[in-house]
Amino acid sequence: MDFNIAIIPGDGIGPEVTAQAKKALEAVADEYGHHFTYTEAMMGACAIDATGNPLPEETLDICEASDAILFGAIGDPKYDNDPTAKVRPEQGLLRLRKSLGLFCNVRPVKAYEQLIDNSPLKREIISGADMSIYRELTGGIYFGEKHLSDDGQVASDGCSYSVKEITRMAHLAFKEAQNRRKKLTLVDKANVLETSRLWRKTVTEIAKGYPDVAVDFLFVDNAAMQMILNPKQFDVILTENLFGDIISDEASVIGGSIGLLASASVGTENALFEPIHGSYPQATGKGIANPLASILSAAMLLRHLGLQDEAASIETAVEKSLELGFTTEDLKPENPLSTSKVGDFIADYI
Amino acid sequence: MDFNIAIIPGDGIGPEVTAQAKKALEAVADEYGHHFTYTEAMMGACAIDATGNPLPEETLDICEASDAILFGAIGDPKYDNDPTAKVRPEQGLLRLRKSLGLFCNVRPVKAYEQLIDNSPLKREIISGADMSIYRELTGGIYFGEKHLSDDGQVASDGCSYSVKEITRMAHLAFKEAQNRRKKLTLVDKANVLETSRLWRKTVTEIAKGYPDVAVDFLFVDNAAMQMILNPKQFDVILTENLFGDIISDEASVIGGSIGLLASASVGTENALFEPIHGSYPQATGKGIANPLASILSAAMLLRHLGLQDEAASIETAVEKSLELGFTTEDLKPENPLSTSKVGDFIADYI
Ligand SMILES: CC(C)[C@H](C(=O)O)[C@@H](O)C(=O)O
Ligand SMILES: CC(C)[C@H](C(=O)O)[C@@H](O)C(=O)O
Repeated sequence: MDFNIAIIPGDGIGPEVTAQAKKALEAVADEYGHHFTYTEAMMGACAIDATGNPLPEETLDICEASDAILFGAIGDPKYDNDPTAKVRPEQGLLRLRKSLGLFCNVRPVKAYEQLIDNSPLKREIISGADMSIYRELTGGIYFGEKHLSDDGQVASDGCSYSVKEITRMAHLAFKEAQNRRKKLTLVDKANVLETSRLWRKTVTEIAKGYPDVAVDFLFVDNAAMQMILNPKQFDVILTENLFGDIISDEASVIGGSIGLLASASVGTENALFEPIHGSYPQATGKGIANPLASILSAAMLLRHLGLQDEAASIETAVEKSLELGFTTEDLKPENPLSTSKVGDFIADYI
Repeated sequence: MDFNIAIIPGDGIGPEVTAQAKKALEAVADEYGHHFTYTEAMMGACAIDATGNPLPEETLDICEASDAILFGAIGDPKYDNDPTAKVRPEQGLLRLRKSLGLFCNVRPVKAYEQLIDNSPLKREIISGADMSIYRELTGGIYFGEKHLSDDGQVASDGCSYSVKEITRMAHLAFKEAQNRRKKLTLVDKANVLETSRLWRKTVTEIAKGYPDVAVDFLFVDNAAMQMILNPKQFDVILTENLFGDIISDEASVIGGSIGLLASASVGTENALFEPIHGSYPQATGKGIANPLASILSAAMLLRHLGLQDEAASIETAVEKSLELGFTTEDLKPENPLSTSKVGDFIADYI
């Protein structure tokens, strides 16, 4: 089959890791007789440097014309500590999510047996943990009205949610729960926030249509605690944008390595796949970045395109690399492989 | 010396645990020749049940007239799952914080040697961790304008911060850092939020007045991860209201038990002391609630009143109870003591 894949390498280690994911995709194409056309596009700090715009029009066009998007990472410290910067790398990603309507971010978190001992959490706490976090991605305080008073003394951010935004997310999360262990946890702060109360009310209504799914509610502060105390209690977690950002990064520790976590951001027309790790500027260009999360993002991308066996072949190759210890230094401090050598191993194995 | 102490037992296990803290205060008064006058006041679900108001006028008066306030816990599940409830227990606490101007919440988190093995985190990760979280308590999205559209379709919460609010918090946190390991970490989401950018800008300015304190900045999603990966890196954490709520509850896991964590909420005129655990409705009235966090809150209260030795005498008694295993079932599943027996032990020891 033929597919158009947009590749946005982005900033920091983004280019290095997406290059390995592309090798894996090429190996799949060869092996299964598909034909993938890749179009590269710019976004983030590199796009600001080149064009002044973190999300050039052309990038948006390329993404819209694609069957799926593979994205690396975004962000550069030179913008983080400059509160007066008018243009920021992250705006590119936020606008892309919004423009393409990628409202649902899915982050599977699983404790890999080979990596459990890398986790700061005890083995018995995380062994067997397996959850999927559904984070709303185009609403809430991320996209609310921002304001700074003329005298610079007062700043504000608005947070709002509509029943419509909550509903479309909730259906996706309930369906996922039906395919899994049939449990859904809504994370909110309904004892304080009006938006959270709307989430709770709407989800309670929608739950009636999924009588086989058990629903519970956790305040976000408690959820942050429960995630460490007993992560196995979670199956599908449903939550709004900011809470999902925090909780899913926290949950990433369970897997034993953030270097292995992939995510999908889906809308009705488009879908984007990216590792959850960031641009990791300190590692850029050193050949030490772990490409597995990006490679697993490519597997999620294939599954999204309906290529199940192809996706599984990548996942098997990743497990093999873990088993044999053919990994980068974050997982194997002694005699590690370089980023590119790990990519070669995966491609060869496929 | 003579002091007026307001006691707000609150909901759930609040009354049981504050009763033990009061025993400790009485033991201190006897031993050191002080005279404490206690005035009980209502707040939360119990106050709604009795008066329709989660924070009766009388409670506010009692608190204002006191030298310090000892508070138990708030909240009742019957309100949590009713998104249409107009009056909520938590409003009592939020209004009290706001009315008394208790803008600064301080939560010390320390790994107790005797409890380290209770933690879901590995010993080497938490042993030696010792931080103090400074959470802004009367601003941000907690107190922003809340709105629900007439048709019930759109909800919103406003979040705002002023330089003034940030400044008074920052000074307290920097001073604390000077008394500790001289490191301050600001937790924000400056890559997305306008309010966070104002925090970062203001704190950067104020930092110039504390050249002996090393400052760094962490995005809240990363902070949620770092808190588990390497909690020892933190000394003083400074953050806004909602992020502080989440991060400090997450951090509570480090101590090995949430049943031991106390907090202070201070303003320019008043100060309130409370355990960080909640009302724990499932345990109410069973005599199993751990009173140590409430007892340690009483110690913080004494220190606030300038009674250092008296505070230390409570802390020593608590360490003794841990050492001897004279604790409730959360810390000692076999042959635990009841809530009240732990309180008796502490009072006797003092
Ligand atoms: C880069 C940043 C804007 C982004 C977010 O907070 O959404 C990132 O942390 C993520 O989670 O994808
Ligand atoms: C009860 C609730 C409103 C409160 C808060 O979120 O501030 C509690 O969680 C706390 O942290 O003291």
